[in-house]
Amino acid sequence: MRTLNVDLGERSYPIYIGGGLLDKAGEYFEQHGLTKKSPVLIVTDTNVAPLYLIKVEGALSDSGYTVVSKIVKSGEKSKSLQVFEEVMTTAIEGGLDRRSVVVALGGGVVGDLAGYVAAAYMRGVTFVQMPTTILAHDSSVGGKVAVNHPLAKNMIGAFHQPEMVLYDVDTLQSLPDREVRAGLSEMIKHGLIWDAAFAKWCGEHTQDLLNLDPEALGYGLTMGCSVKAKVVSTDETEQGLRAILNLGHTIGHALEAIGGYGEFLHGEAISIGMAAAALIAVNRGRDRELYNETVKLLQGFGLPTVMPNHLDENKIISAMMHDKKFKENQIVFILPVSIGKVEIVSDVKLEEVVSVIRELKKEGQHV
Amino acid sequence: MRTLNVDLGERSYPIYIGGGLLDKAGEYFEQHGLTKKSPVLIVTDTNVAPLYLIKVEGALSDSGYTVVSKIVKSGEKSKSLQVFEEVMTTAIEGGLDRRSVVVALGGGVVGDLAGYVAAAYMRGVTFVQMPTTILAHDSSVGGKVAVNHPLAKNMIGAFHQPEMVLYDVDTLQSLPDREVRAGLSEMIKHGLIWDAAFAKWCGEHTQDLLNLDPEALGYGLTMGCSVKAKVVSTDETEQGLRAILNLGHTIGHALEAIGGYGEFLHGEAISIGMAAAALIAVNRGRDRELYNETVKLLQGFGLPTVMPNHLDENKIISAMMHDKKFKENQIVFILPVSIGKVEIVSDVKLEEVVSVIRELKKEGQHV
Ligand SMILES: NC(=O)c1ccc[n+]([C@@H]2O[C@H](COP(=O)([O-])OP(=O)(O)OC[C@H]3O[C@@H](n4cnc5c(N)ncnc54)[C@H](O)[C@@H]3O)[C@@H](O)[C@H]2O)c1
Ligand SMILES: NC(=O)c1ccc[n+]([C@@H]2O[C@H](COP(=O)([O-])OP(=O)(O)OC[C@H]3O[C@@H](n4cnc5c(N)ncnc54)[C@H](O)[C@@H]3O)[C@@H](O)[C@H]2O)c1
Ligand SMILES: [Zn+2]
Ligand SMILES: [Zn+2]
Repeated sequence: MRTLNVDLGERSYPIYIGGGLLDKAGEYFEQHGLTKKSPVLIVTDTNVAPLYLIKVEGALSDSGYTVVSKIVKSGEKSKSLQVFEEVMTTAIEGGLDRRSVVVALGGGVVGDLAGYVAAAYMRGVTFVQMPTTILAHDSSVGGKVAVNHPLAKNMIGAFHQPEMVLYDVDTLQSLPDREVRAGLSEMIKHGLIWDAAFAKWCGEHTQDLLNLDPEALGYGLTMGCSVKAKVVSTDETEQGLRAILNLGHTIGHALEAIGGYGEFLHGEAISIGMAAAALIAVNRGRDRELYNETVKLLQGFGLPTVMPNHLDENKIISAMMHDKKFKENQIVFILPVSIGKVEIVSDVKLEEVVSVIRELKKEGQHV
Repeated sequence: MRTLNVDLGERSYPIYIGGGLLDKAGEYFEQHGLTKKSPVLIVTDTNVAPLYLIKVEGALSDSGYTVVSKIVKSGEKSKSLQVFEEVMTTAIEGGLDRRSVVVALGGGVVGDLAGYVAAAYMRGVTFVQMPTTILAHDSSVGGKVAVNHPLAKNMIGAFHQPEMVLYDVDTLQSLPDREVRAGLSEMIKHGLIWDAAFAKWCGEHTQDLLNLDPEALGYGLTMGCSVKAKVVSTDETEQGLRAILNLGHTIGHALEAIGGYGEFLHGEAISIGMAAAALIAVNRGRDRELYNETVKLLQGFGLPTVMPNHLDENKIISAMMHDKKFKENQIVFILPVSIGKVEIVSDVKLEEVVSVIRELKKEGQHV
């Protein structure tokens, strides 16, 4: 078992990473001094519930906690205000009070949704993350919680740090292959933005990671979480540095939105976004090797790096303009400088983006 | 013009109280360094818009701000997640970004709704309060923002302090009489919880206040706001002291809920709640004079102090139990000790509340 710390003064919290942790959920709750007098709400989804809900409910009940659970439909569409209101209904009917804890048991969708419930219920209650996807090594750390607006992703949200992240890596064994790849996309991102050696390690351990080898996975997730924790500790509310975590996300979020949150998984969309960012950087003068290496690393994991031909570039652009990273009429982009290092650039013009979209469509036709 | 300060370290802000302030909105925005590059969203309601929206839009445009406006239906029902989402739609379509300002132009309903939009939009943007009701001298100060859940009031919200409160008391002249009385109910509350001399002053200036005499109103609102500001400065997130602001609200909120947010105005409901709290205190041993004086003061303003006979006491109790002030199976009540002084009592039993509800129903039949 490994423990990392997210260092945020009064709001600091640990990330526990290891096997068998869900069985010990009650003990961790006690260690953290969470009251047994108030009901706990577990939010999970229709895929995760049959696999792990009984385990967590049991572990908490055995320690004397009262538990109510809400199972939402799996998938990005549950990150809506409608589902948010339904979870609130369960919380109220379950008698949750100000000392109650809301638990997210699942991937980033459940984490973001339950986290926003925890942020908003009675103006804020304690939140515990129990991530069950690889992608959630990213989403469970850092306190960004949100639901989507039909017009734009993550538009409605808050900063609400968890009390702890209990990351039971045994749960990852049941992940569908496509989710494994998509989750590894954010792990690679953490290498690309911060740590060249770790990016290289990812390239050398591609097969181990795809096979969910516990040793490789444990190391990779710890490294990924620790990059995220470092960045967040330095800049909790994204005044500056934290923006580097958005590598690939400016275009990525637009692709998710115009695909109706159904065509691309988040990790797939940002994989294309990272390839696009590298190409913009190359077009601005960086060595072409930067783009080639980025694409090779991502493709090794079976991740997409070209732009599907059927996507309308005007739609991509207009979805991008609704995104939070569009600030005072200039579009902010995170661009790679070299593998392991990025910069925040605020003067990227729409033409540059259009031209890269076209180049990446051509790349697709060559394959 | 009077200026008060809400002292919250980095989140401190001024309350400007005076006549003609809406015309100077642009100047205040400039003084506060609010950017002109990002659009401003004004949220207001169907009663306030025809009276004051053009004035504020004009003042901001004249100073070079781009303004988009959203007019919601007047009334408590607009404090819903559905309307919240509609306002979000306007914000997104209007191109608001992270540096944008959301303005609440209206009473407490618009203030709470727009404030929660400001707290949630892109995880938080700048918020400016422009209160136009007497009641909003209370609601516009302190950073509590929220919408209602169908099962309970103010259940979904945040703490999000404004950048400033611009309180143009000229707007109060157009308030309907019933709203005047209901708003004064919170002003009286500020006397009852904190300042015996101010409570006495309210009793002596009842007619001036009801007649909206500018001198009396200006003084009363300044005193009310300053009590609120002091309490909030001491305890921003209601860990303790701030709860005293809830005098009359435990029962008051329940009455609003079972009346479907239509039968009672907020100020009327808490007037009955303050009478009930005084009676609980008397039943626990305080001098009966405490109840008599409280009721006399409230009745002087034409505020209700008896319990309407048709209200089912079981419904009142069960609505109370959904309220935030119901903590770990004990009900927290704010009870008067004497005029100008209250205590937080956490062991009030439901029987005590039921018995007071019955007594206040009998009082109603005597009248
Ligand atoms: N808050 C943040 O900082 C942050 C960061 C990155 C991504 N996100 C968000 O995270 C979301 C994506 O997260 P995700 O990829 O985890 O999506 P997800 O939660 O939808 O999980 C992916 C799929 O795997 C299933 N699943 C989850 N755990 C499983 C398990 N152990 N075994 C079998 N199936 C399992 C889920 O039911 C779902 O179908 C997006 O909404 C994205 O915006 C948030
Ligand atoms: N956030 C807090 O700390 C806090 C504190 C107290 C109350 N509140 C909330 O405030 C709300 C009640 O506020 P309210 O009483 O101001 O209600 P409101 O906003 O509904 O205003 C009352 C009525 O007066 C109208 N109106 C407003 N200004 C007017 C003007 N200048 N001229 C003519 N008509 C005008 C409105 O359209 C409405 O019909 C409740 O939802 C309550 O929960 C919040
Ligand atoms: Zn991401
Ligand atoms: Zn009130």
